[in-house]
Amino acid sequence: MPIEEMLRFNSQKVEKALEDFLPRQDCRQADLIEAMRYSLLGGGKRIRPALALEFCKVCGGREEDVMPFACAVEMVHSYSLIHDDLPCMDDDDMRRGKPSTHKRFGEALALLAGDALLSLAFETLLKSPAEPARVLLAAKELAAASGYLGMVGGQVIDLDSEDKQIDYETLKAMHAAKTGAMILAAARMGCYACGAKEESLAACTAYAKNIGMAFQVTDDILDVVSDAVTLGKSTGKDSRDKKSTYVTLYGLEEAKRMAGAFTKEAVDALAPFGQRADSLRELAFYLADRKN
Amino acid sequence: MPIEEMLRFNSQKVEKALEDFLPRQDCRQADLIEAMRYSLLGGGKRIRPALALEFCKVCGGREEDVMPFACAVEMVHSYSLIHDDLPCMDDDDMRRGKPSTHKRFGEALALLAGDALLSLAFETLLKSPAEPARVLLAAKELAAASGYLGMVGGQVIDLDSEDKQIDYETLKAMHAAKTGAMILAAARMGCYACGAKEESLAACTAYAKNIGMAFQVTDDILDVVSDAVTLGKSTGKDSRDKKSTYVTLYGLEEAKRMAGAFTKEAVDALAPFGQRADSLRELAFYLADRKN
Repeated sequence: MPIEEMLRFNSQKVEKALEDFLPRQDCRQADLIEAMRYSLLGGGKRIRPALALEFCKVCGGREEDVMPFACAVEMVHSYSLIHDDLPCMDDDDMRRGKPSTHKRFGEALALLAGDALLSLAFETLLKSPAEPARVLLAAKELAAASGYLGMVGGQVIDLDSEDKQIDYETLKAMHAAKTGAMILAAARMGCYACGAKEESLAACTAYAKNIGMAFQVTDDILDVVSDAVTLGKSTGKDSRDKKSTYVTLYGLEEAKRMAGAFTKEAVDALAPFGQRADSLRELAFYLADRKN
Repeated sequence: MPIEEMLRFNSQKVEKALEDFLPRQDCRQADLIEAMRYSLLGGGKRIRPALALEFCKVCGGREEDVMPFACAVEMVHSYSLIHDDLPCMDDDDMRRGKPSTHKRFGEALALLAGDALLSLAFETLLKSPAEPARVLLAAKELAAASGYLGMVGGQVIDLDSEDKQIDYETLKAMHAAKTGAMILAAARMGCYACGAKEESLAACTAYAKNIGMAFQVTDDILDVVSDAVTLGKSTGKDSRDKKSTYVTLYGLEEAKRMAGAFTKEAVDALAPFGQRADSLRELAFYLADRKN
C-alpha cells in the first residue's frame, strides 16, 4: 500500500474511533464538547496514531487493543495545540487553515477544552481491552511523555529560548521533549498493546527517536521554504520570533542533510522487523519529504 | 484523635509524599518545577487526600497503596486552582493568602505548570504498588472525575451561569461536577486501593456526595460571612460577580440548614463502618462548621 493511502486508511479509522470516544453533546457541557470536537476532528495527518497502529500490527497485535492508545495520543496532541495557540503562549490565530480554538470559542472555553482532552485521553486509553499490565505500561508512557520532562517540558525550554541564540544541545533537548516524546510514546504504546518483546521495543524506540528528529528539522525547513496556504499555518514565524532553529543554526542545506541522516538512522533501526515494517520505512521517508 | 489533629497528621504525611513525587529541579525545566511546587506545597487543608487515606484505612487497606492516589488527587486539585485563577478564567490575584501562580510566574508558565501537574497526577497514581486491576480502577476514576463531566465540566456550567439567575438543579449539577466529582473520586480511590467490597463503596459514595454538597454550601456561606484574611482569598466575590449561590437562591439561614442536612446524610451513610469511621464523621462536621 502506498504511504499516502496507508495514512489515509489509518486516518479514517482513527477519525471514526475518535468520534466514538468523544462524548455526546446532549448534556450541560455541549459547548465544551463542541470545542473539543472542533480541535480534534477533521484535520491533521494523524501521524502519531498511525505509528501506534503500525507498530502494533508489525508486532502481531490486535487493532482493538491499540486503538484506544492511538486515540489517546491524538487527544493529547490536540490539547497541546489548543494551549500552544493561546494568547499567553504562541498567540496563533490560525491552525490547520481554520481559526484556532480560542479564536472560535473564546479563551476560557479553549483552555478548558484542552484540559478536558488531556483527561479524556487517559479515560480513552484505559478503555483498551488489552491485558491490565499492558494498559498500565501505556498509561505510564503517556503520562511521562506528556508531562514536565516530555511535551510540556519542551514547551518550557522553548519559552526560555525566545529572543536568544541557543546551542545545538538545547535545541535538540527542546525538540526531543516538545515533539519527540509524544512521537516516541505513540510508537512504544503500539508495542505495549501487544506485549512486544524487548528487542522490538528497542528497535521501535530507535526508529521513533530518529523520525522525531527528522520531523522537527523538516518543520524548521518548511517554515522557511513553504507558504501559509500549503502549510495551513503562518510561515516565516521562526525568524520573525528570532527563534533558533536547525536552519538558523546550520543553514538550509545542512538542515536538509540532517533530516536525511536522521531518516536513514530510523530506517536502519527497523531491520529486526524485516519486510513487515515496509510501511514504517515509507513513513519515515514521507515525513522527511513532506510539503506541509 | 481530634479532627484538627487527624487532618494535620495526614497533611504532614501527604506533604512529605508530594515532595517525594515532585521532580527534582536539576534540569532544564527548573522554572516549571518551581511553579508546580509553589502551587502544590505548603498550603491547603488537604481534605481530598485525607478522604483517600481515611477510607483506605477504614476498609483495612495499606497506606503505601493509597498514598500515590491521594497525592494524585491533590495534584489535580492544585492544577485546577492554577487554571481557575488565570486572567481568562476567574482572574484571581490571590490564592491561599499569597499571589496566585500566574501573578508570581507569568501566565505562560502557570498554564504549563497546571498542564504538567495533571500529567504528573496520573504518573504518580500509576506508581501505586496496589494490584494492577485496582490501580486501573483508580486511574479511570481520576480521569472521569477531572474531565468533561467532572471538574472541567463543572467549570463550564459555572462560566455559562455568569451574570444570570440559575435554578437549583443547575447549581447542584455545577457543584456536583466542579468540586463534588473530585471529592467523590478521592474517597472512592481510597476504597479501590484496598479492593473494598461493594457495600463499602456504596456507603463511601453516599458519604462523599453529601459532604461535597455540604462543603459547597458552606463555601457560599463563607463568601458572605467571612473576611479575606480568615478565608485567604477575596470575599463578597460571588455577589460582585452576580453569581447564583445557595445563599442568593435561598438566603443565609436556609443555606445553613441545608449544610446541616447534607452533613447529617453523610454521617448516616457511614453506619456500615461502625466506630472505625469516627474520624470521617468528625470530618463531615468539621467541613460544615469550618471558618475558611
